[in-house]
Amino acid sequence: MNLILLFPDDFIDENRVRLHGRRVDHIRQIHRASEGDELRVGAANGKIGTGTILLLSRDSVEVAVSFAQDPPEPVPITLIAALPRPKILRRILRSVTALGIKKIVLLNSARVEKSYWQTPFLTEHAIREQLVLGLEQSRDTILPEVALRPLFKPFVEDDLPFLLRGTAAFLAHPGAPGSCPREADKPITLVIGPEGGFIPYEVDKLIAAGCEPVSMGARILPVETAIPALVARLL
Amino acid sequence: MNLILLFPDDFIDENRVRLHGRRVDHIRQIHRASEGDELRVGAANGKIGTGTILLLSRDSVEVAVSFAQDPPEPVPITLIAALPRPKILRRILRSVTALGIKKIVLLNSARVEKSYWQTPFLTEHAIREQLVLGLEQSRDTILPEVALRPLFKPFVEDDLPFLLRGTAAFLAHPGAPGSCPREADKPITLVIGPEGGFIPYEVDKLIAAGCEPVSMGARILPVETAIPALVARLL
Repeated sequence: MNLILLFPDDFIDENRVRLHGRRVDHIRQIHRASEGDELRVGAANGKIGTGTILLLSRDSVEVAVSFAQDPPEPVPITLIAALPRPKILRRILRSVTALGIKKIVLLNSARVEKSYWQTPFLTEHAIREQLVLGLEQSRDTILPEVALRPLFKPFVEDDLPFLLRGTAAFLAHPGAPGSCPREADKPITLVIGPEGGFIPYEVDKLIAAGCEPVSMGARILPVETAIPALVARLL
Repeated sequence: MNLILLFPDDFIDENRVRLHGRRVDHIRQIHRASEGDELRVGAANGKIGTGTILLLSRDSVEVAVSFAQDPPEPVPITLIAALPRPKILRRILRSVTALGIKKIVLLNSARVEKSYWQTPFLTEHAIREQLVLGLEQSRDTILPEVALRPLFKPFVEDDLPFLLRGTAAFLAHPGAPGSCPREADKPITLVIGPEGGFIPYEVDKLIAAGCEPVSMGARILPVETAIPALVARLL
């Protein structure tokens, strides 16, 4: 936790918060902080600042806060990813949030197992938990939007053309002849398939919608490795 | 498993292998392969080729193999990483192997918990297991070398200058003024710290040895996200 993310409920007055639960444990056990110590804080969807610990007890912390700095610039990439296995989903939500991406679409594909859509990790609460962890890690405050699209065809035919407007759109596809460009000069839409890849019908539909297939070389990367690699290459 | 990696023990004659255990389960349950089907295979530290399933039983598979193609070019990066938590260590070994890195040094740091060096995931067998998974994922055959360096000071003073010779050396350090370069034109040594970062003494020693501190922007990335991002940026 490189920043303590604060929500409206935490504020007991304009410049003072009272925290409970996970954040208290973290401040006590990981930061090993004492009264008077300073912490980096951020208001959810707002500014970054400093907190001074006023009161520290076993189950709550009171912190005087002030906010001075804007959060880092959002990364201008919309990520459209085939829904990964639940265990990997959580890691990917954290990682993508830490990278600074603010729009994430989780999409169906023929190679996404139907059971993946039933995981409790896809509830609004569970998703938000991972986004918060990603922001706390990366010292950011702006919560990404996550959209679930359990139907491939209507998404690609009806929503995708709208999403792609004004962006450079790439389909990460191992074996594609084009290699992933560097430093794209406008907003980007990045589409990434499931383990085993999109099926040919899906690839054709994505290309028809305007996505250019690109690869990161001869190796097939696991999705949790491919995403940061592609994002770093494109920025 | 995008490639079945074969070891000398698997060969029953020059062009024929008999497999047991995990690879049989994978061929039966994930590939759902039958006799006569083709598989992509690779000889450990050798060429890539094709296998044709001759005999498929519950607990073994016999495959006729031929090798035609070189594995992908090694990525010319030596990664020196502070030893991560055991759970993350395994993922990082797979991910770094999938990226094509062939030299990995796991290093101590003041912020590496002593217990991490005791994990069974650091045995030669356990490390090799993750390297094999990384190669099978990425369709590569060349096993990386992994060196363990549980003493920071002698490594940085005695071994590091030798390792750095002829390479561009970067220390990934959140908040460093320099930003990570693109497409370095010679072999690279990339040093990455533990959660919480190297302590100032360690940073000074690494800089004195010839490492240039660089960052990937304002955000602090978790190590498993930072590594693929830095590698993709540097290549």
